[in-house]
Amino acid sequence: MVRFVYSFDEIREPVSEETVLRLGNKGAQLAEMTRIGLPVPPGFTITTQACREFYARNKKWPEGIREEIRENMRRLETRIGKKFGDPQNPLLVSVRSGSYVSMPGMMDTVLNLGLNDETLKGLGAQVGSVRGALDSYRRFIQMFGDVVLGIPNAKFEEILSRRKNAAGVKQDTELKEKDLEAVIAEYQKMVQGHTGREFPQDPQEQLQQAINAVFDSWNIPRAVSYRRIHKLREDAGTGVNVQAMVFGNLGNGSGTGVGFTRNPSTGEKEHYGEFLLNAQGEDVVAGIRTPQPIDSLKQAIPEAYAELMNVYRILETHYRDMQDFEFTIERKKLFLLQTRNGKRTAQAAIRIAIDMVKEGLISKTEALMRVSPKQVDSLLHKQIDPRAKSKQKPIALGLAASPGAAVGKAVFTAEKARKMAEENPQEKLILVRSETSPEDIEGMHAAKGILTSTGGLTSHAAVVARGMGKPCVSGAASIQVNEEKGFFTVGEHRIEEGEMVSIDGTTGEVFDGEMPLVSPQIGNEFLELMKWTDEFRTLGVRANADTPQDAKVARGFGARGIGLCRTEHMFFEETRIAAVREMILSSTQEERERALAKILPFQRTDFEEIFEVMEGLPVTIRLLDPPLHEFLPKEEAEIRKLAQTMRLTEEKVMARVQALHEFNPMLGFRGCRLGIVYPEINQMQVRAIIEAALNLKKKGIRAVPEIMIPVLGHVNEMKFLRQLVDDTAQAVMKEKHDGIEYTVGVMMELPRACLTADEIAHYADFFSFGTNDLTQTTFGYSRDDSGIFVPVYLEKGILSVDPFESVDPAGVGALIRISAEKGRSSSPKIKLGICGEHGGDPASIEFFESAGLHYVSCSPYRVPIARLAAAQAAIKKAKG
Amino acid sequence: MVRFVYSFDEIREPVSEETVLRLGNKGAQLAEMTRIGLPVPPGFTITTQACREFYARNKKWPEGIREEIRENMRRLETRIGKKFGDPQNPLLVSVRSGSYVSMPGMMDTVLNLGLNDETLKGLGAQVGSVRGALDSYRRFIQMFGDVVLGIPNAKFEEILSRRKNAAGVKQDTELKEKDLEAVIAEYQKMVQGHTGREFPQDPQEQLQQAINAVFDSWNIPRAVSYRRIHKLREDAGTGVNVQAMVFGNLGNGSGTGVGFTRNPSTGEKEHYGEFLLNAQGEDVVAGIRTPQPIDSLKQAIPEAYAELMNVYRILETHYRDMQDFEFTIERKKLFLLQTRNGKRTAQAAIRIAIDMVKEGLISKTEALMRVSPKQVDSLLHKQIDPRAKSKQKPIALGLAASPGAAVGKAVFTAEKARKMAEENPQEKLILVRSETSPEDIEGMHAAKGILTSTGGLTSHAAVVARGMGKPCVSGAASIQVNEEKGFFTVGEHRIEEGEMVSIDGTTGEVFDGEMPLVSPQIGNEFLELMKWTDEFRTLGVRANADTPQDAKVARGFGARGIGLCRTEHMFFEETRIAAVREMILSSTQEERERALAKILPFQRTDFEEIFEVMEGLPVTIRLLDPPLHEFLPKEEAEIRKLAQTMRLTEEKVMARVQALHEFNPMLGFRGCRLGIVYPEINQMQVRAIIEAALNLKKKGIRAVPEIMIPVLGHVNEMKFLRQLVDDTAQAVMKEKHDGIEYTVGVMMELPRACLTADEIAHYADFFSFGTNDLTQTTFGYSRDDSGIFVPVYLEKGILSVDPFESVDPAGVGALIRISAEKGRSSSPKIKLGICGEHGGDPASIEFFESAGLHYVSCSPYRVPIARLAAAQAAIKKAKG
Repeated sequence: MVRFVYSFDEIREPVSEETVLRLGNKGAQLAEMTRIGLPVPPGFTITTQACREFYARNKKWPEGIREEIRENMRRLETRIGKKFGDPQNPLLVSVRSGSYVSMPGMMDTVLNLGLNDETLKGLGAQVGSVRGALDSYRRFIQMFGDVVLGIPNAKFEEILSRRKNAAGVKQDTELKEKDLEAVIAEYQKMVQGHTGREFPQDPQEQLQQAINAVFDSWNIPRAVSYRRIHKLREDAGTGVNVQAMVFGNLGNGSGTGVGFTRNPSTGEKEHYGEFLLNAQGEDVVAGIRTPQPIDSLKQAIPEAYAELMNVYRILETHYRDMQDFEFTIERKKLFLLQTRNGKRTAQAAIRIAIDMVKEGLISKTEALMRVSPKQVDSLLHKQIDPRAKSKQKPIALGLAASPGAAVGKAVFTAEKARKMAEENPQEKLILVRSETSPEDIEGMHAAKGILTSTGGLTSHAAVVARGMGKPCVSGAASIQVNEEKGFFTVGEHRIEEGEMVSIDGTTGEVFDGEMPLVSPQIGNEFLELMKWTDEFRTLGVRANADTPQDAKVARGFGARGIGLCRTEHMFFEETRIAAVREMILSSTQEERERALAKILPFQRTDFEEIFEVMEGLPVTIRLLDPPLHEFLPKEEAEIRKLAQTMRLTEEKVMARVQALHEFNPMLGFRGCRLGIVYPEINQMQVRAIIEAALNLKKKGIRAVPEIMIPVLGHVNEMKFLRQLVDDTAQAVMKEKHDGIEYTVGVMMELPRACLTADEIAHYADFFSFGTNDLTQTTFGYSRDDSGIFVPVYLEKGILSVDPFESVDPAGVGALIRISAEKGRSSSPKIKLGICGEHGGDPASIEFFESAGLHYVSCSPYRVPIARLAAAQAAIKKAKG
Repeated sequence: MVRFVYSFDEIREPVSEETVLRLGNKGAQLAEMTRIGLPVPPGFTITTQACREFYARNKKWPEGIREEIRENMRRLETRIGKKFGDPQNPLLVSVRSGSYVSMPGMMDTVLNLGLNDETLKGLGAQVGSVRGALDSYRRFIQMFGDVVLGIPNAKFEEILSRRKNAAGVKQDTELKEKDLEAVIAEYQKMVQGHTGREFPQDPQEQLQQAINAVFDSWNIPRAVSYRRIHKLREDAGTGVNVQAMVFGNLGNGSGTGVGFTRNPSTGEKEHYGEFLLNAQGEDVVAGIRTPQPIDSLKQAIPEAYAELMNVYRILETHYRDMQDFEFTIERKKLFLLQTRNGKRTAQAAIRIAIDMVKEGLISKTEALMRVSPKQVDSLLHKQIDPRAKSKQKPIALGLAASPGAAVGKAVFTAEKARKMAEENPQEKLILVRSETSPEDIEGMHAAKGILTSTGGLTSHAAVVARGMGKPCVSGAASIQVNEEKGFFTVGEHRIEEGEMVSIDGTTGEVFDGEMPLVSPQIGNEFLELMKWTDEFRTLGVRANADTPQDAKVARGFGARGIGLCRTEHMFFEETRIAAVREMILSSTQEERERALAKILPFQRTDFEEIFEVMEGLPVTIRLLDPPLHEFLPKEEAEIRKLAQTMRLTEEKVMARVQALHEFNPMLGFRGCRLGIVYPEINQMQVRAIIEAALNLKKKGIRAVPEIMIPVLGHVNEMKFLRQLVDDTAQAVMKEKHDGIEYTVGVMMELPRACLTADEIAHYADFFSFGTNDLTQTTFGYSRDDSGIFVPVYLEKGILSVDPFESVDPAGVGALIRISAEKGRSSSPKIKLGICGEHGGDPASIEFFESAGLHYVSCSPYRVPIARLAAAQAAIKKAKG
């Protein structure tokens, strides 16, 4: 028969994942602390399975549970020597929820359960204080009313304040017995008015209702959405912990507090925590009275302090991680009510992990597993001061598209941003657009941050901003941007050009006005941790970088190569775009070649600079990728200007713009299709690459170019272009009487390429998965357009995560596995990497590790995250 | 050692595919005729491998071949008793190309090779006619000069005519010996002037040059492009046949002719053919003299006639197919120079196939294999009279997007077409657009044919035209359409609105003016053949039909159900679009439901009508698929009008249009994504379907609805929508106190759906592959945009066929196989079909048969083709 209830002292084995899943974390740790001899008030846990059965049975209790609870209550009575509901010597309990991870939003705690108009007296006798008993009863009605009966807490506070005013006192503790009696009477009356029923006097009924309230709280919207956001198990259920009450409110020899075994802000090893004398649990958190630091307990209750110091030591040694625990002191006797791994700041996480290795408490692999990649990320970016955030609400919430915070004047066109930055290079600007396009690059450069109202996590704005390491909030759908007139509105706010806004790309928040920022602090611990990652990870980490600046940042963060150098960004710079447009407007191969010859020196210099920064490390250069129309102007005035510059009729320019117009540019004339229709484009690019490498060789600098062919879907494309690359490279080397090594590979971003990888691998030295486009084609989602339905999909649980954020293992992942397998079948030594946005996402990195790839490539600012995530993936894999 | 040369009488085995590939078809049939005792002049064949080696060695002969040829020439000399190059008794030969299929454009024939100024005399003695010898020599120089030396034939004809004029005669045969001598001298002089060398006098050199010319002709552009268009093997190479000459030009007891064992136009069994007395081979074809019908040979050379009748009989009995053969009569003795399966009209092909079965010559399966699906297609559509085509050249060539020919006044907007057709329903119109969109549907209805300058074989224009059975030429890129001003230009032609144009959607040709059309003739033989297909095919054949009219046509052609009924076309009709737009402009679910309630009765009636036509047969109804913006107007004036009708501000309408704008609509908010975000749309559609089926049930008509969910990529979408469909259907049936059966399935058109088919199959009764979109996503080709690079890909041999025309087995096909396998693994009885455009393509049908699908669905007018192709695929599969 299934058992639904376990007493704390029943568990004989050290706590395990299984126990945590079965009892919830709180229950499992209460049992564990009991097992290792720490002073825990006795009690029992109703399993998470009971919760699951509760839902499976349409909110009815599963069979047998009632009897098990009764039996356990009986044992508790025997153990404590009190009786539940006994007017003379009542047993009181606390009821608390606890799932396998702690989850805000779920019902937390009901204390003093078992009190009623009768048992109140018995309690008074037990604790030797009628007032103490009245205070406990008052608290019980309030808590039960709030969390079980759903009566707003404010209604109770109202009654309480009114009574304090009437009594002319400020603190709850100052209320007299008769005041408390009056409060209780008023509470009961209000409860009856609110629920239509008397406040339940039967302790058994109280218990049953409290347990149901815990079960119910598993599925309240806040809890559901918390699980969705944090990718927690939907089917886990919550445990219910029923525990004999101890009282911290029995005078100044009693108290309650919270301890951390290390400082959760800094990570320093110290006895961190605070307590209140003569108080019950929730008072510390509620902040009604100001708690005292742990140290002053030495003076107040020295016996309890000594015991507490012991507890600090035992908890750390036993759990080998920083603990966050709750304690109550009842008449100088210390009781532990809860312990869990303490939440900590990023900085603290790293310091604690490293210190614990040095103290011999944990191994390096354990230390690496203790720091989350997200924490590393937050260390690298400016943040809005959390104190300021607690005082001001955001005006909009978009997607956390590129981490970090920025503050600046709103500006609505890239042109304007560029001009303002030119006039005053110190000017702080936030570029606000409904969406960005490649024409906006310079404006994005000029701005401190980017805010868009449409587009997802891999929209142009998001991708480019991440590449630049600039904060970006994308897809803030509640914002209406009027770019022409230069303002945006959101709700009742209207922000004009030049007015200050603040964005937080780590959270997606947008604030009106100038918020104070705090700077990231990269300490020695951070650098040490990063070094450790390299000892364990098997995946290489490279960066996506298009400029020498990006490359420098990437190398500084430990990137061991460039996995994606996009050449088209080089085409957009003002000095070059004219030649690019001339090339596109050419009608013959000769004209095109003439225009390309003008671009060649620019490209060569670009590559020379990047190769120099990355000396000795591989640089994967992607041949021209975007559809040509992206380079042409769209506005009539601009077209007119272009026609004049090019000495062409406006009609001809317009005709070319129209001819290149595409219904679905994502699936259009781009990538290697350009290079096959106009081979001279790729010839120029290959020439620039090889010439650059040869020039550096003369200076004694080794360049390691890897030429990557984008949007490839057919082996014949590869045959054609491999030939073109090799012929061009050979020709250049012959001209220059010198040679260098280079490789040629494929950006795998189309399902067809993956499905025919065995054919393609015959001609390729490497595959690099372009998981952005592969996700687009595999799902049939345009990353620019999916913002309208993907949020609904997440909300309705159709998708558990945006596939542009974390790689989809079942679909996109299947194609990656197929490719890897097929590719290796015909070319066992083929190098396999990934250069999509997923290269910086920890969950995806774990998948790539499991798929046997050789490296990941991500934006420069995500390199540390990727290094850590790769190490964690390798450690997990080694564990099996 | 490899042998490169085989004598005709060496082959002992009946002709096989292997022999045909090795010797070429001509060589293989010469050997076969020799083997079965027919009178063939002796000779030998140089293998196709020799040709391949020739190219592999940079146009050098492979080793050993020279000796083999010499040896075979020696044997030929012995056999005939003449000597190659002997002035007294010269051996003359013909040299002819011959690949595994006959290929226009390749070098055909050089006769009389071995003649020179010396052997000429010996020939005169041999044939007893100096004039005959001179005539042969003159012909040889001309043929050799033309096909081997590359001198335009006109230059020879010029000399000949001049001489005929000078001699005052009309026919070549009237030229005297001295005239011929003069012609020969002039020919030789002209050749020397043209090539800078004397006409080769050495017969060995003549032979070598002729053989090289045959090899070279394999790769001349015309031959290459012929192979590409007809999907012939690029690597096959051509054989070379060297054969002892016989002479038809030795007076009136000699002659030459061509025979067909049945009438190639009608298929009637008769001795079809014609001949010329005193002539050599090319004269019959050249049309200089009018040949006589075969029957008159009975009078002219009775001995040869008797033998010829015997040959007719033997060839048909032996080859069991209609033969097209060449013969020469040398002094009353009949020789066969060639035989091959005769080309025939579609009508003849069917009649011959059926007759031969009735005559017991061939089996039904053979008969079915003898008729090509293309022939069936041409039988179903009007054609431009071939006689008119031979006189007038097309002004443009586009894609053969929807078969049949149409003639009408050019009209440039759908609105205008509709109006003109309203004013005069007899008006013949051709709608000319750069491309069409769903808003053009009514105009397309009003036109006889559609011509577009952009878009591929699966562009909107092409798909809709095929669905309507209307001729369409799409992607005629040389045409510039000016829709506003109402004209189009192509080269120097300019066609104004109202001027007549003709299009041939079977060939892609566009003609200026009104071309005469000939009507299709569907005879009893056609119907009989179609019946036979049903005996053999295992694939079901359904049609894609959106209207009762389409459904009727489809059922008439033998469709056993509807495999794709698109519901969005129903939304575009003028009476409904208002409600559809109201639905889209709604901002709450209630508003949307109100608008949908207005559409419901229309949809229900649509379905009732279609179910009635398809009584008892399955009808697969696809839930709403296109992005909503397709239903909204794009022009400002129209938006203004809509705002007025809807009593909304223009701004609001404009905002909604903009909000629904998509960068890549193909990958946007469409398909089941609509139904998940706005479930009420699909609820309305399911209600309409179920209500329609229940209404018909009351009338005693059985409807078999299959509800299909489009653009699905994730099992959770399926779970959600299956639930929605089932809930809605149950609710309707409960309301109506009645029930019907229905199934729910998935349109498989995204790679992710295919890769996770095992998960999806748990909730699906059927999969129907939407191979259009699956091709788009697998290749990353937008069908609307690929017109710019796919033609280049075909030209450069990157693709051997447009993947929108024939399904790509390696990529799209792999996904179909994966889906089928995975789908069956979790649901062994799942029904598998295909409803993309490929459903009517024979090569694709063969693939679908091999992949184990259950049915194909194609446009109504392609149903007969699909039935035949399916039968052929099944027969091929059975053969292994």
